[in-house]
This record gives sequence, C-alpha cells and structure tokens, in this order.
Amino acid sequence: MQGRSVYVRGLGFHPFGRHPGKSIKQLAATAALGALDDAGTDLRTIQAAFCGNAYAGLLTGQESIRGETWLRAIGLSRAAVFNVENACASGGSAVHLAALGVASGAYDEVLVVGAEKMFVGDTAKTLQALASSADIEVMSNIGMQFAAVDAIRVKEVMEAEEVDESALEWITAKNHGNGVHNPMAQYRKPMTVEQVRASRMIADPIRLFMCSAISDGAAAVVLSAKPGRGAVKIRASAVRSSPIRDRDGERPTPALAADAAYAEAGLGPKDLDFAEVHDAVSPAELMYYRELGFCDEGEVAKFVREKRSAIGGSMPVNPSGGLNSRGHPVGATGVAQIVELTKQLRGDAGGCQVEGARIGLAHNAGGWSGDDPAVCVVHILEAEGRK
Amino acid sequence: MQGRSVYVRGLGFHPFGRHPGKSIKQLAATAALGALDDAGTDLRTIQAAFCGNAYAGLLTGQESIRGETWLRAIGLSRAAVFNVENACASGGSAVHLAALGVASGAYDEVLVVGAEKMFVGDTAKTLQALASSADIEVMSNIGMQFAAVDAIRVKEVMEAEEVDESALEWITAKNHGNGVHNPMAQYRKPMTVEQVRASRMIADPIRLFMCSAISDGAAAVVLSAKPGRGAVKIRASAVRSSPIRDRDGERPTPALAADAAYAEAGLGPKDLDFAEVHDAVSPAELMYYRELGFCDEGEVAKFVREKRSAIGGSMPVNPSGGLNSRGHPVGATGVAQIVELTKQLRGDAGGCQVEGARIGLAHNAGGWSGDDPAVCVVHILEAEGRK
Repeated sequence: MQGRSVYVRGLGFHPFGRHPGKSIKQLAATAALGALDDAGTDLRTIQAAFCGNAYAGLLTGQESIRGETWLRAIGLSRAAVFNVENACASGGSAVHLAALGVASGAYDEVLVVGAEKMFVGDTAKTLQALASSADIEVMSNIGMQFAAVDAIRVKEVMEAEEVDESALEWITAKNHGNGVHNPMAQYRKPMTVEQVRASRMIADPIRLFMCSAISDGAAAVVLSAKPGRGAVKIRASAVRSSPIRDRDGERPTPALAADAAYAEAGLGPKDLDFAEVHDAVSPAELMYYRELGFCDEGEVAKFVREKRSAIGGSMPVNPSGGLNSRGHPVGATGVAQIVELTKQLRGDAGGCQVEGARIGLAHNAGGWSGDDPAVCVVHILEAEGRK
Repeated sequence: MQGRSVYVRGLGFHPFGRHPGKSIKQLAATAALGALDDAGTDLRTIQAAFCGNAYAGLLTGQESIRGETWLRAIGLSRAAVFNVENACASGGSAVHLAALGVASGAYDEVLVVGAEKMFVGDTAKTLQALASSADIEVMSNIGMQFAAVDAIRVKEVMEAEEVDESALEWITAKNHGNGVHNPMAQYRKPMTVEQVRASRMIADPIRLFMCSAISDGAAAVVLSAKPGRGAVKIRASAVRSSPIRDRDGERPTPALAADAAYAEAGLGPKDLDFAEVHDAVSPAELMYYRELGFCDEGEVAKFVREKRSAIGGSMPVNPSGGLNSRGHPVGATGVAQIVELTKQLRGDAGGCQVEGARIGLAHNAGGWSGDDPAVCVVHILEAEGRK
C-alpha cells in the first residue's frame, strides 16, 4: 500500500451454510461483532464501514443502504458507511476501498463486512441473481451460467497443460480435506477422488462436488492504521477489471491483478508461503496456478502431480478448503479470504495451518466480461513479527 | 483531504429527463466520455472507475457489475472498477471513495460516473425501488414514502423557526428560476410562487412542484492528483451516517457531515460563496440552512425573507436549480453536484453563475434511518487560482 501502513486487526465470521432462520442482518451482525471483539474494540472506534454484498437487492428487496441496515441494528452511529458491489469480488473490493481509506489518512479504524443470504426458498430466484454478475444484455441472455463459463476456461488450460480429469479430482479432494478443519466451512467432511469422480456432471469437465455451494454467511475484519496484538500488515491491495484482449494482449484479469500486487509489495510468487484463491469451481485452481505465477506455463501437470499445492507442499493453495469447501456466500467470500490469511499468519489456523506461514496471497474474482472474470482483487498480507 | 491533494479535472453529463429510447449504458457513456474530453484525456489514463447507482438491480436486473458493463461498452480495459451504493447519496459516496483512492496514492487519475434510469415504463416498480432506500423491514413496511418523511421534518422546522408556506413556495420558485439556465436540468421553465401554491398537495406541506422529479440521467467527473486547466481542488470530503440520537445527542446527519467537512477544510460556512444542497423536496432547504450552518437557529425566517439564498444574495443556495429543477436520477445526483460546483468555480456557469465564486459546498443525502437521512456526504471545493 502507498500512503500509511494498513493492518488487519480483528477477525469475525458467521459460519457459512444453510441458515433458514437467520436474516442477513443477523449474519452480518455476528461477523461484525466478532471482528470488533477480536480487535479488542467496539463500534465507537469505527470511523467507516465498508459493506460487501451482491444480491440482497434482487433476493430480499433491500437495495441502496444495506450496510446501514446491518450495522445500525447493532448500534453503529455517525460512522461513514459504504455499500460496495463487484459480484463475487464484492468482499475483496470492500477490503481494498477500506484499505485506501486508512492509507489516505481519512480514517484510522474501519470495519469491513461481507455478507450474503442466498437461500431464500426459491432456487430459480437465486440463480437469476447470480446471472446478474455477467452483463445481462450479453451473457445472461444467451443462457451461459457460470459453471459453463468456467468449464470452457478449464478445458482450455487442460488441453494446453496436458492434464486430465484426475487433476481436477485431486484438487477437489485436497480442498475438501483441508476444509474439514475450518470452523467457517459449510462442508467439513473429507472427500476421496473416487467420490468426486462419481458425482454427476454439471458442465463437462466440472462435476457437482467440484462446485462451491450456494450459501448463507458473513465475514468481517477491522482494518487499522495501528498495528497491535495479532495484527497483520497489508503489503499489497490491487484491483483490475477485465482487459479488452484485442488491445491489451493476452494477460487475463487474475494475472493483471497479481502482477500489480507483486509490484506493489516488491515481492514475487516465490516469496509466498501460501495462497487462498477463488475456486468457485475447484478446477479453476489449474488456471490460477499459472495466472498467479505459482508455476510456469507447461508446468501445471507436474505441479499437481507433485502435490505442491497441498498443505505441506511447496506452495499450499486453499489450505482453508477454499470456496469449494467453505461455501460461497458471494459478498462474504473476499472478506473470508482475508480472515483465512490472517489466521494463518497469526499461526491460529489449527488443522489448516501452513507451518511458519509469514506471507500469504488472496485472490478474489468477480463477474464475467465475456473473456475473463470482470474484476479481480489480489491482496498480499505479511506477519511482520514472524521470522 | 488528507494525503495527496485531489483535483476535479473533467466534467461530463447526460441531460436529466425522460429518455425512453436510451439505456443506462448510453446515459453513462455520454457522461463519461464528456468528462474525459473535458479533462483532455481518454480512458487509457484512467486507473480506476467509481460508479454510483442505486436501483439498476431492481429496475433492470443488472446487479453486481453495473459499472463494468457501462464502461467496457466504451472501451475501459484493465482499470479497477467499483460499484458504490448509498441510495440518493450513491454519487457523492462514489466521489468520496474516488478521492480517497487518489489521496492515498493508489491511483493518479480516476473516473467517477453516477447514472440512473428510473423511467422503466412501470411507475409502481420505480416507487418500490425508491422504497428500498429505507430499511424495508422498518420504514417501507409501514408505508412511509419519502415525501411523507420529508413533510414531517419540514413541519418541525417550520414550527421551530416560525415560517409559513410562503417560504416553501419562494424557495421552490427560486430554484426553478435558477434551473432555467442549467443545460443539465430536466425542468427549465420559470415558476411563480402562485404556480407552486396552485400545485396539488402531496404530503402536507409539500406540494407537487416542490418535489424533484423521477429522472433518467448521468454525470461524471475525472479526479486527478495533478491540477491543470480548469482544475478545482477538493478541500474536504466527509461522509457520516445517521446518529443514534439517544446516544449521540441531537446533531442530525447533515450537520455531522458538514461539521466534519468544515473541520477538514479549516473553513466555516461564512467562507462559502455558494452551496448546492440535496433538495429532493425543495422545502428541505429550510432544514439545511440551519443544519449546514448557513444561518443560526431562529434566523431562518429572516434568511428567507431577505432572499439571502438567491443568486446575488449573501449565500446563494442551489444556483443550479438544485434537484428540484435539475431532476433527481438518484445515483447521478451527487456527481452532478460536483459538476455544478466545478462549473461555478471555473466561472463557466452562465446564467447560474455566482459572481466571483471561489469556494463552494455540496451536500448529498441518502436513504432514511428513521430519524434522519441514513447517510450524508459533504464536499467543499475551491478554485485555487481565483481571488
């Protein structure tokens, strides 16, 4: 970050899953109060709140002042409130804007809350809301749902890298195995590659168990200009929208955002101890291994075969279980990734812990432009005190 | 602003009004391209775009990545895009966050676009979207529309300040008179106090001609770390949400935001040459005269009687015609106010010009908390070169 240093100081969440008896206000409140408690502070110190949500307008009718309704319910008074949307990257975008607020000197302590309530008793309505994360005049009207879009991209990388379905199955089983130990996760059962392979095909080559689930949930962090107990430094926060390929060459959105974050941090992928990436379908990890620089082009098959992205490997990816196991309440995901990174960097990740983790990256992708994710957010966090 | 100085460098808009043949993408594109042209630049210099909109999700189904769809259509590539919502203060909130982005050093040149398409051939649908600017579990379900909420507040100030309906009528006629000269305005006809008085009652004491109109429109500005031809400096950018009155005393949201902006700028209301305020109903000016410090409590009747808020008065308010005359395409309004301020400070406001204007304030209010606007944004801009 330019400007002042920015620290993640408090973490909170409401476990992801199916919560028919709870409103989005209740989910958001649990996460927000948890983050304040973890930071050892309360709402009175919070000067601004950045609220990430994608679909409450379409799913509940509450548009416009969602964050104000969440936080006034628990006593927020006077602080600035901003409602931030960027499809599945709403949470990461809210973290980025909150970090700018602290870096600029405008705010000393801010709250970021990402929340989504997707189970509204009407799956068709939820799917229609999800379709609004592409340009509805283009993508949605030709009937491309996100699993289909991801399937096309995954097929491309499978061909280019000469990997077969067993790689997709291994990644999925790896992430479900990691998620067993994650208290935020919707699915906490281990899964074998055979179970993955036996699940029904959704959009070839993507099978049911490879898809992150519709979910209710919330996550929150307190960002501060001051370090303190358990604080972790934001080394980089970068956002890029989709390039228009014929003008800008072939770097896809995730790579553009990662390039910017590495430049900002003065670090490269080799300096990372682990990463949380946006596996809305777990096979997307295949693309991200290349696009985020975890391995070179042509090396993906080897990277998977050597299980380098497992906990204990040279570059653990989604040690939390990722979206695939944690669930994907859309607006909450990007904030949840910052919670996961900070837990790792504090050494508090329990069964998900990457030993000695000091620097981690989070990649949060949102929407669809026709070529790429419409927008990607990459954060790099560092535990300054750890060696 | 703390951090680096931030300048408004380019202005653009699509005239407000009823535009049945145009999509929100077309409205936003006209405003964005106008702002880039006015700044003497193009999309390639823009590192981030901040897009204000309140109701596209509910009115068109396009949620999540509204700004990406607007700006990709005119060639935006790679730049970060953020979708910002805060009901009627969505535009002002987008300007604030964009200013933080530049002040922090993260971005050197950014685009802010506010756009709204409210005429969708279904007035009931538009009214339902508007109702989402209050907490739908509280306000909307008890049937309070915004004109009713404003009526209660206006009555309170009328009683406290001992003013009668003639003050409301004069303010309305003043604003419509000013709007005659504004090329952005939806209504450009002069209006007499008799015409205002003859219009039908909507919510006592608010009459039809006192209400800003449903509108389609867009406004855009380029913000930059560098001054340049026609650039105007942002002296303050402050956002506050509604106070919980029993804890925080009696200062309402507009006063909290104005207090913060005055403190940030090191200025007081006496230093202002003019102001644009959020007259979603024109009688709201009565409250803002006190809450923004343009006159003391108990002085409102005199302030109006002496016509101090007219162009040529000691403190011109809404020389552009305000929301009442310009129309109120919700997400565009806060950006339009920055366009109006900058035109005045450049001396380019034509028949709306306040002679010698050097410092101006914009107040943009959004949503409803039950006591107050849910959120208020106040900007103070200064023409550095002018004496």
